[in-house]
Amino acid sequence: MSDSDEQIFTPEVLERVTSATLMGMGAPADLAHLVAESLVLSNLVGHDSHGIIRLMEYSGWVKAGTLIPHARPEVLWKREGTALIDGHWGWGQATAALANTTVIELAKEFGSATVVLRQSHHIGRMGEYVDQMADAGLMGIAVCNTGGAVVAPFGGVKPVLGTNPFAWGLPGPQGHNYVLDFSTAVVAAGKVVLAAMNGEEIAPGSLIDKNGNPSTRAADLEEGGALLTFGGHKGSGMSVLIDVAAGVLSGNMPATLADNGFGNGTIFMATDISRFVELSMLQSISQLFEGKMKGSSPSAGPKVLLPGEHESNVFGSRSQKGIAVSNGVRKNIVGLASEFGVSLPEFE
Amino acid sequence: MSDSDEQIFTPEVLERVTSATLMGMGAPADLAHLVAESLVLSNLVGHDSHGIIRLMEYSGWVKAGTLIPHARPEVLWKREGTALIDGHWGWGQATAALANTTVIELAKEFGSATVVLRQSHHIGRMGEYVDQMADAGLMGIAVCNTGGAVVAPFGGVKPVLGTNPFAWGLPGPQGHNYVLDFSTAVVAAGKVVLAAMNGEEIAPGSLIDKNGNPSTRAADLEEGGALLTFGGHKGSGMSVLIDVAAGVLSGNMPATLADNGFGNGTIFMATDISRFVELSMLQSISQLFEGKMKGSSPSAGPKVLLPGEHESNVFGSRSQKGIAVSNGVRKNIVGLASEFGVSLPEFE
Repeated sequence: MSDSDEQIFTPEVLERVTSATLMGMGAPADLAHLVAESLVLSNLVGHDSHGIIRLMEYSGWVKAGTLIPHARPEVLWKREGTALIDGHWGWGQATAALANTTVIELAKEFGSATVVLRQSHHIGRMGEYVDQMADAGLMGIAVCNTGGAVVAPFGGVKPVLGTNPFAWGLPGPQGHNYVLDFSTAVVAAGKVVLAAMNGEEIAPGSLIDKNGNPSTRAADLEEGGALLTFGGHKGSGMSVLIDVAAGVLSGNMPATLADNGFGNGTIFMATDISRFVELSMLQSISQLFEGKMKGSSPSAGPKVLLPGEHESNVFGSRSQKGIAVSNGVRKNIVGLASEFGVSLPEFE
Repeated sequence: MSDSDEQIFTPEVLERVTSATLMGMGAPADLAHLVAESLVLSNLVGHDSHGIIRLMEYSGWVKAGTLIPHARPEVLWKREGTALIDGHWGWGQATAALANTTVIELAKEFGSATVVLRQSHHIGRMGEYVDQMADAGLMGIAVCNTGGAVVAPFGGVKPVLGTNPFAWGLPGPQGHNYVLDFSTAVVAAGKVVLAAMNGEEIAPGSLIDKNGNPSTRAADLEEGGALLTFGGHKGSGMSVLIDVAAGVLSGNMPATLADNGFGNGTIFMATDISRFVELSMLQSISQLFEGKMKGSSPSAGPKVLLPGEHESNVFGSRSQKGIAVSNGVRKNIVGLASEFGVSLPEFE
């Protein structure tokens, strides 16, 4: 059985395994459960790079003492439509969950809200949070400056920027919200690291090597190369604004000025849609809009997708059929859990 | 002297010429002055596609009765951090100016604000507004669903979306703010129309023809083709969110459902930075960040630019040296002014 062979697990098993591992690292049960649910949700919607594989990264931070596993996030202050959340360098997902509850509450009360997350570790997949904002009848935006300068700006040849994701959610007409969530790098760093581990190449136009030349060799990223931004100067400009705005407002600092390799300086913004339009009106118009989008599909070939539709489809399928985990990932997690004195009988 | 030959004019002359033409169309002097200043500012920062050439489009709407030249925008309601501005189908720049004053005021009071513009005509270059928000010490975001479905979504072959621009501003360290302002289409429709008028080709990857095949022939846009979105599925997703969110909240409707070819359903969002960090701190960190950005430049070749730096440079140069206007554009404006009984001695 090779490392790339896969076994199928139910989300419940993966949540238990993840939760137990996190508790082994020192997380209280409620926080471990929250983080596990968030990670497995990423697997469920098809973004394995943001799923349980992150346990490896998290365990490194716990061992290094830069992630405080028992720390609980705190609302430092609230003032009209703004608030500052301190993660106290605990679990980022717990910080983001508190921030999200707060931004939803403030947006309902003041119509518009901005919440900043400081001392926050990796918050996971940002689409989760704007999806929850949309569930609450809000338009939600999330931007995050990621620790570690690995992306070259447009026209540049050295890494300056983080992968600085951007997410945007809006209530959708049926079955799923419109959820956009992307790295401002052409590809997410996590996917390149995965490809390097598997010895795979990545698509042209995503990467330069340490000399600034185009490369498809994933390992070049960790050997002094840099990812490129999506969409030329436009994606690069978004990444710059995210790095500076989210980096400075959170105190996390732009990646290039605090290259510690961790920390998610994050801004959540939300607007209460119901102040401007009835939710049912938004939904019925979106329904008509979707018909036009589908009608733009080529006669031969796949249908045009709405933002979040792919994730919704994968969620439906994986909730039923389970989640495939490679033996390599499984053995890695079993190994790191054992370092924390945790055995994972369901995973062995 | 051919149509493409150019003459240089001072911004003051262009503002007088533009203002006089707008008054000829029926604009009160103050509104004409406001719109003229905004259009000439676009020329000054180097975006001629959003400059005085727009008089041609505007005059068409005035003649068709779809732009009410004497209408004044109105704050329909204000409630905590939200407001709705009605442009009453007058000049979009006047609507946007009132919306911007409002969003700045509300963001100062409530920390976070969202203002929606309804019945708004073309508001001009969105960078102008987020730049003003940044001048006021705010982080500003503007999104706008443009009338007229001319852009195919990712994977689609028929036009569904508007060119739906996105703008984002943040106070910068020296000389200029960080201002990002881009069309979610690969190229702005205005630039393709200009290219078609001049018989020029546009860059590959920007356009498909009426059969869904890649094209570089600008005229294909008006012959049943479609522009493409920037950045693949990411830019397409942004365009979808803009079309639905700004289209529905404003009542302007997504472009594909109200294909009247005009109207800018717009959302302005602003956050008061000073609630989270001193402006001087933002500026000093940005200064360090800029050094790193410049340091990413290749040893041979142009320096990496910050968002808004190009526009700031062009503004400096054109403020000194004046603005080049082609004879074709000049004659067109002289001609349309005369239709409204206005002579433009400074322009003839």
